[in-house]
Amino acid sequence: MGRLSQRRKVHKYVLDSEHRVRNKEDVLAVEEPLEIRLATPGGALTYSVTMRTPGDDFDLVAGFLVSEGVVWEPGQLVSERFCGGEDADGLQTFNVVQAQLRPDVALPETGRNVYTSSSCGICGTDSIESVRRAGHHSPADDGVRLLPELVAGLPARLREAQALFEKTGGVHAAGLFRVGDGGTSAELLCLREDVGRHNAVDKVVGWALRSGLLPLEGTVLQVSGRASFELVQKAAMAGIPVLAAVSAPSSLAVELAEESGVTLVGFSRGTGFNVYAGHERLLS
Amino acid sequence: MGRLSQRRKVHKYVLDSEHRVRNKEDVLAVEEPLEIRLATPGGALTYSVTMRTPGDDFDLVAGFLVSEGVVWEPGQLVSERFCGGEDADGLQTFNVVQAQLRPDVALPETGRNVYTSSSCGICGTDSIESVRRAGHHSPADDGVRLLPELVAGLPARLREAQALFEKTGGVHAAGLFRVGDGGTSAELLCLREDVGRHNAVDKVVGWALRSGLLPLEGTVLQVSGRASFELVQKAAMAGIPVLAAVSAPSSLAVELAEESGVTLVGFSRGTGFNVYAGHERLLS
Repeated sequence: MGRLSQRRKVHKYVLDSEHRVRNKEDVLAVEEPLEIRLATPGGALTYSVTMRTPGDDFDLVAGFLVSEGVVWEPGQLVSERFCGGEDADGLQTFNVVQAQLRPDVALPETGRNVYTSSSCGICGTDSIESVRRAGHHSPADDGVRLLPELVAGLPARLREAQALFEKTGGVHAAGLFRVGDGGTSAELLCLREDVGRHNAVDKVVGWALRSGLLPLEGTVLQVSGRASFELVQKAAMAGIPVLAAVSAPSSLAVELAEESGVTLVGFSRGTGFNVYAGHERLLS
Repeated sequence: MGRLSQRRKVHKYVLDSEHRVRNKEDVLAVEEPLEIRLATPGGALTYSVTMRTPGDDFDLVAGFLVSEGVVWEPGQLVSERFCGGEDADGLQTFNVVQAQLRPDVALPETGRNVYTSSSCGICGTDSIESVRRAGHHSPADDGVRLLPELVAGLPARLREAQALFEKTGGVHAAGLFRVGDGGTSAELLCLREDVGRHNAVDKVVGWALRSGLLPLEGTVLQVSGRASFELVQKAAMAGIPVLAAVSAPSSLAVELAEESGVTLVGFSRGTGFNVYAGHERLLS
């Protein structure tokens, strides 16, 4: 039993003429909490707890820090290590990662649960505006161009490369492709899977940060689900010029893609796709 | 143009022998940030910012507070109102909701971004344990029983009741059904949709709180996507005895369902389904 998937007994109901109920084993995607901690001069700060599929946790933390705008260059993240967290038998859970930032990197401001004393009429704006983060990389300046056939073929290439999905049916994938040959070919640089769509993207972005590849010029990020505001933001923060999703984008995802110069592709299904923003990157 | 969906221009690529590119209009699910504030003696506290589809916002906030264990009876939530948040033209955005709790209700402890001074070896456990919240309702004691055919038919009834999904293809739904006639029939009590699966469930739970229906004995919550830990937790906190998902559950979702006495159904697709926990509620 690995940490990515887990076998569990399940009662399977098949409602045909025989009305069978069978005991069988099913393979489930593992979901566990990961606590992200940042080292401080006096100790450590719990920055976030996320539910994720274990594996590539240092990439996940690194990518999360890029998405949140805390770091944007590899040197800003000095080190990461598993710490704390023991289960009832005293075994290390590998569910707490502590990151050490370079001393000149500002610790993130508090997000959730900030006490404010402002009266109601003027409140709120700052907190909601903080959802849109200032980026250090600029996908808008990326001159990459792509053949429509190339874009349409990426979901199939993502699925082919997914080993875990076939087993559990319950994980999302994000695949980072480097576009080459004038927009006619693409090489898969990194594929990550997770029960959470946003985690799969953070794992890819964190891998890129730690590999010294940010900003991710000339790349396409293909994701398995829908395109939310959050995913467009993660792409923009990593300097990814093209985000392609298998399912629908939201209205705010389209708005942010337009603002930040990210080409946004949705409903990419092999035989076609929709372009919601940044249409100029598609070759005719 | 309503607030639930929005029309946007899109470039549609159809990659057949004619290689058409058409300009058409597409309907997108609206996604906007909602800031949840709690009134305090000295002002207000920003408790959370969530990306959601506007609509049923008071239900969303109420359900979020139930899911977080802040309230569990209708009287604990005294009032809710839209406040703050103006756009560039000075118009109310309806993206900030402030809730007033009864004075005896404890304000929630801070979650994210808690500074701690403990050294690394002993840290972490509390924060991760806090993911599992103590419930005030107990689905384990719910004696409801269901015919397998009834369970298998719920996804189709959810889809039939979904008006928005047909337009945008990008929203999740949660439907609450009351089981009747000894487990052979079910009445749809409440259906909510959202770009976020967890929001759709919070909207249903919040509706129930505000309608004085908690704990939700004898009900089934049918959701459109997969079953995460988070959704099982929301069901348990509302006293819902049966959670049914169209797609896969995660390992931790199954564990929590077993612990909390929630029957967990996955891969419910009309012709059959799997039961991962609480199999005793299925009639043979």
